[in-house]
Amino acid sequence: MQAEIITIGDEILIGQIIDTNSAFISKELNKIGVSVYQITSVQDDRDHILKALSEAEENVDIVIITGGLGPTKDDITKHTLAEYFNDELVQSDAVLDNIKSLWKNYVKQPLMQVNIDQALVPSKAIALMNKFGSAPGMWIEKNNKVFISLPGVPYEMKALIENEVVPKLQKKYKFPYILHKTLVVYGIGESMLASKIEVWENNLPQFIKLAYLPNLGKVRLRLSAKGTDKKAIELEIEDQMQKLMPLLDGIYFGFEDEDSIEMSIGKQLTLLNKTLATAESCTGGKIAKQITANAGASVYFKGSIVSYATQTKIDVLKVPKELIDKYSVVSKQVAEVMAQNAREIFDTDFAIATTGNAGPTKGDSDAEIGTVFIAIANRNEVYSEKFNFGNLRVKVINKAVNKAFEMLQKEILKIDKN
Amino acid sequence: MQAEIITIGDEILIGQIIDTNSAFISKELNKIGVSVYQITSVQDDRDHILKALSEAEENVDIVIITGGLGPTKDDITKHTLAEYFNDELVQSDAVLDNIKSLWKNYVKQPLMQVNIDQALVPSKAIALMNKFGSAPGMWIEKNNKVFISLPGVPYEMKALIENEVVPKLQKKYKFPYILHKTLVVYGIGESMLASKIEVWENNLPQFIKLAYLPNLGKVRLRLSAKGTDKKAIELEIEDQMQKLMPLLDGIYFGFEDEDSIEMSIGKQLTLLNKTLATAESCTGGKIAKQITANAGASVYFKGSIVSYATQTKIDVLKVPKELIDKYSVVSKQVAEVMAQNAREIFDTDFAIATTGNAGPTKGDSDAEIGTVFIAIANRNEVYSEKFNFGNLRVKVINKAVNKAFEMLQKEILKIDKN
Repeated sequence: MQAEIITIGDEILIGQIIDTNSAFISKELNKIGVSVYQITSVQDDRDHILKALSEAEENVDIVIITGGLGPTKDDITKHTLAEYFNDELVQSDAVLDNIKSLWKNYVKQPLMQVNIDQALVPSKAIALMNKFGSAPGMWIEKNNKVFISLPGVPYEMKALIENEVVPKLQKKYKFPYILHKTLVVYGIGESMLASKIEVWENNLPQFIKLAYLPNLGKVRLRLSAKGTDKKAIELEIEDQMQKLMPLLDGIYFGFEDEDSIEMSIGKQLTLLNKTLATAESCTGGKIAKQITANAGASVYFKGSIVSYATQTKIDVLKVPKELIDKYSVVSKQVAEVMAQNAREIFDTDFAIATTGNAGPTKGDSDAEIGTVFIAIANRNEVYSEKFNFGNLRVKVINKAVNKAFEMLQKEILKIDKN
Repeated sequence: MQAEIITIGDEILIGQIIDTNSAFISKELNKIGVSVYQITSVQDDRDHILKALSEAEENVDIVIITGGLGPTKDDITKHTLAEYFNDELVQSDAVLDNIKSLWKNYVKQPLMQVNIDQALVPSKAIALMNKFGSAPGMWIEKNNKVFISLPGVPYEMKALIENEVVPKLQKKYKFPYILHKTLVVYGIGESMLASKIEVWENNLPQFIKLAYLPNLGKVRLRLSAKGTDKKAIELEIEDQMQKLMPLLDGIYFGFEDEDSIEMSIGKQLTLLNKTLATAESCTGGKIAKQITANAGASVYFKGSIVSYATQTKIDVLKVPKELIDKYSVVSKQVAEVMAQNAREIFDTDFAIATTGNAGPTKGDSDAEIGTVFIAIANRNEVYSEKFNFGNLRVKVINKAVNKAFEMLQKEILKIDKN
């Protein structure tokens, strides 16, 4: 059973908004065993919408349409749907009651004719009640295929998918089981990884699909399987993961949809009752930001000094000016003193420091663009590594952040074993 | 002249990633006068890719394809393109040189056969050099239509669009001019707004298209026009905006522009020769991270103290312990001292401080979850505001970051006028 998602709106095709609805809908459909065949974004244009509906009807059994249901003149989805199904719009009393209640409780403005018109739906449609807005979802069946039209406002669409669409689909159809399991591998390139696991990959059963998703110093390896026997699929994927993991000996990896590396580090630090601080130059606070995005970070994370200016390294982080003059601000020596001093200032078990040149210009250092030193201090020692992350600012910053977490993870694993 | 974007990758159709590439490409194409007719996301599947290519060839003149160009077995775009054009893959020496140089300078691993194979391109294609990765872009012409295949990695794709695709398209075709102008209206619903401006809307010239984009308390009103006479289009849009604005008398509105608020603040600080520091508790470094994501931030941004632990506020930010004991760590008093001390420690013109409770538990303070104090210090004074941003951690952090930038923007505008 396959679905197509059609998102309607000029704002998508001029790049004014990023279509996040499709990813949400795809994920929810996959969870219940529906594969998404295609996502199609089209303009607020009658002919184009009619063409997209007709092509989708040929390709799939379930068509989910979002957008174009507002009360203003540029919104034409509902009229076009009525035309596509040779239908006419009739008032839904339940929808009108819902609109009246929203206006009374939240909008607190007089109801206008355009708001009342939101209760018009094609006569062949079942209206799906929208608790957060005036545009109802619509469910229309044709030759055992189903067309579902939803508002484009993300939180309205999400509530309708979760509360109306998914239960109704599961009631109408019997779906297979789809499982995706993603392993995240750090510090090895895609092609090197592929050569390491080649034999394993070649022996994967036909019904398991493998994908490589590389991204800035980490590679996500996704195994996907689909079938009717949930238990058998779970066992087979688990079995393959057990065969895969020994091949990654010595390489750090984790699982997606479980913990990010910073969440996993946070859990380990909490368990070990250890604390962490950061001193960030070229990463500009991003390491701290990713740590503190997780609830409970205050247990192990004391804080960070983002020493973006050289003077800040001297004044706040107490890096000796002579050291900077002698070795330059982007150097092993400065990185290590940054880590040591941050650890002392915050009085933590570990500190991680970054100093580098993210570009596009060289700033206060002669170091080549992309050069980054990352240092780790614990209560006994400090050490660092030198990297070159290329000449694109966003890449340098993100690779440095990922590498810092990777080094920190290795450091914690060391301590863990003592 | 119209374009279609085809994004290839199972990860999009299972909702594992959000397709941000299409929005970027759409925006860049619109800037040079190319309308995007449709965005189509398809699976890593030979038949499906061939079908999408053939449909796009019927509909448009320019087809831009992203994704599926990696070195691993799940990447099939290049072979499928060769098949579509009845072509064979041949080695591009220029691409191979580029790969060798990337491996020598950055990867520092032996070149494997799969890496060398990345230099294979269809014989009919012009290879577009990818400075950041091994997969080249490919430009293939057929009957005066052009097909452009790009890697899916966003920063690789972006550089290729900007440096190769856009200049080559502009050289090959003569495009019309497209102008979008977006006005943002706050605090009035979409339908109420539509009724206020109805007469104006009905009198818009045919070639100007109006769209309403409502989103949580604000409505974006977009005017779009396309034509050959750039000057005439600009004048007409400007004229319509002049007619529209008096109708919004008493309603707060602004214009959406290209810069994020932090980029705009950065430009103003640079011009005014003023400097900034931050002291972040509940925002955990995210304000610093957003500032330093922009090149040139070192001119005005000195650094941040992320004082996540209460003890850090005392030890590093020198907030008196008695003040914290008396007023609690989430208080107007503590926020203001944090801002003042950060400004002094970093010796800047402005400092911004956040302290709050992002949840899900209360931490070191009795403040209700969602309570955030944001303080701004300049060389003469300090002031703060109290907010409640609700009970969802990610929402509290992000709303606090946005509000901090909004307050800072207002502060800078004040100074600007003196």
